[in-house]
Amino acid sequence: MQDKYQLLRQHFEEIVTLTDEEWNFIAPHFEHKKLKKHQFLIQTGQPVDCEFWIINGLIKSYAVDEKGSEHILQFAMEDYWVSDYYAFQHQIPATIFVDCIEDSEFFCLSLESRETICQKIPAMANFFRIKSNYGFIGLQQRILSLLTQTAEERYDALLFKLPKLVQRVPKKLIAAYLGVSRETLSRFKG
Amino acid sequence: MQDKYQLLRQHFEEIVTLTDEEWNFIAPHFEHKKLKKHQFLIQTGQPVDCEFWIINGLIKSYAVDEKGSEHILQFAMEDYWVSDYYAFQHQIPATIFVDCIEDSEFFCLSLESRETICQKIPAMANFFRIKSNYGFIGLQQRILSLLTQTAEERYDALLFKLPKLVQRVPKKLIAAYLGVSRETLSRFKG
Repeated sequence: MQDKYQLLRQHFEEIVTLTDEEWNFIAPHFEHKKLKKHQFLIQTGQPVDCEFWIINGLIKSYAVDEKGSEHILQFAMEDYWVSDYYAFQHQIPATIFVDCIEDSEFFCLSLESRETICQKIPAMANFFRIKSNYGFIGLQQRILSLLTQTAEERYDALLFKLPKLVQRVPKKLIAAYLGVSRETLSRFKG
Repeated sequence: MQDKYQLLRQHFEEIVTLTDEEWNFIAPHFEHKKLKKHQFLIQTGQPVDCEFWIINGLIKSYAVDEKGSEHILQFAMEDYWVSDYYAFQHQIPATIFVDCIEDSEFFCLSLESRETICQKIPAMANFFRIKSNYGFIGLQQRILSLLTQTAEERYDALLFKLPKLVQRVPKKLIAAYLGVSRETLSRFKG
């Protein structure tokens, strides 16, 4: 278990420097959990107590429309953060689902803990600030790709950027991420 | 001019508390500028020296595709932040345009200044962290709307959320934001 916490510290220290004293304050705020394939981290209508940092495994966040179709917001694998951030930040019931594509292991951080850590330890405020900036930039790029690219161009870009993800994820989920049918995806050359 | 800086301080103090000493350190990092309607803050291929906080006016950020069509990433009015964040963060040439829909007045903040302020003043690290979180959430909501809603539903949602913006912005730009043609937009009831 100590090893898992060490991975988390390394994740922070890729961006900021922490003293042992700071780390000893931070670590107990993170709760370690495991779930099996198909189990839920978040279900619509339920409270969103945590954001999650993935130690290993593969997770997806997604909305289900009135016709029952899944629309994937995010794939999250090792080293990624995931939650229903809208519900988490506003402390309202979840509006999307988050579940495991593979057996997964992760740390949970509550909103209260995150705020405590960020108020107490400036390096962590900067860590989450910089992480959030990168997340913001990634989402702006995705919006531009949704507005300007064809589905096939988006598939090629995903293959180029995250080839291992495309191998690990069932094709019907890739289709739900790109916003095309499974049949359309099968016609792309890749 | 002192009034304009006071607006900026108020903007920060909606989220964090600053001492006069902290504010006196922060303020000189912000440069005041004005531009006329149609002038550019950022042009593709050029350096992105700043992010911008809008004092008044109306600004848009957008990509232009191979056919010459505009795809609007963001409208920014009073109290909004805007830049080509991808290029700004990585200090590479701009990949999008940012220009004025109306005469606009704004403050400019360089990446170096932002990092200096955030390292020196923890409250500002928290300010930008929380702002970035809200921005991230807004973009996730927009991606979900692009994946799950029709253009007419997106138009209705925009009217509901930002009715004054829809009044101020020419209809062809609203169409370019929603990802539909001007003709399609004219058929929506609103």
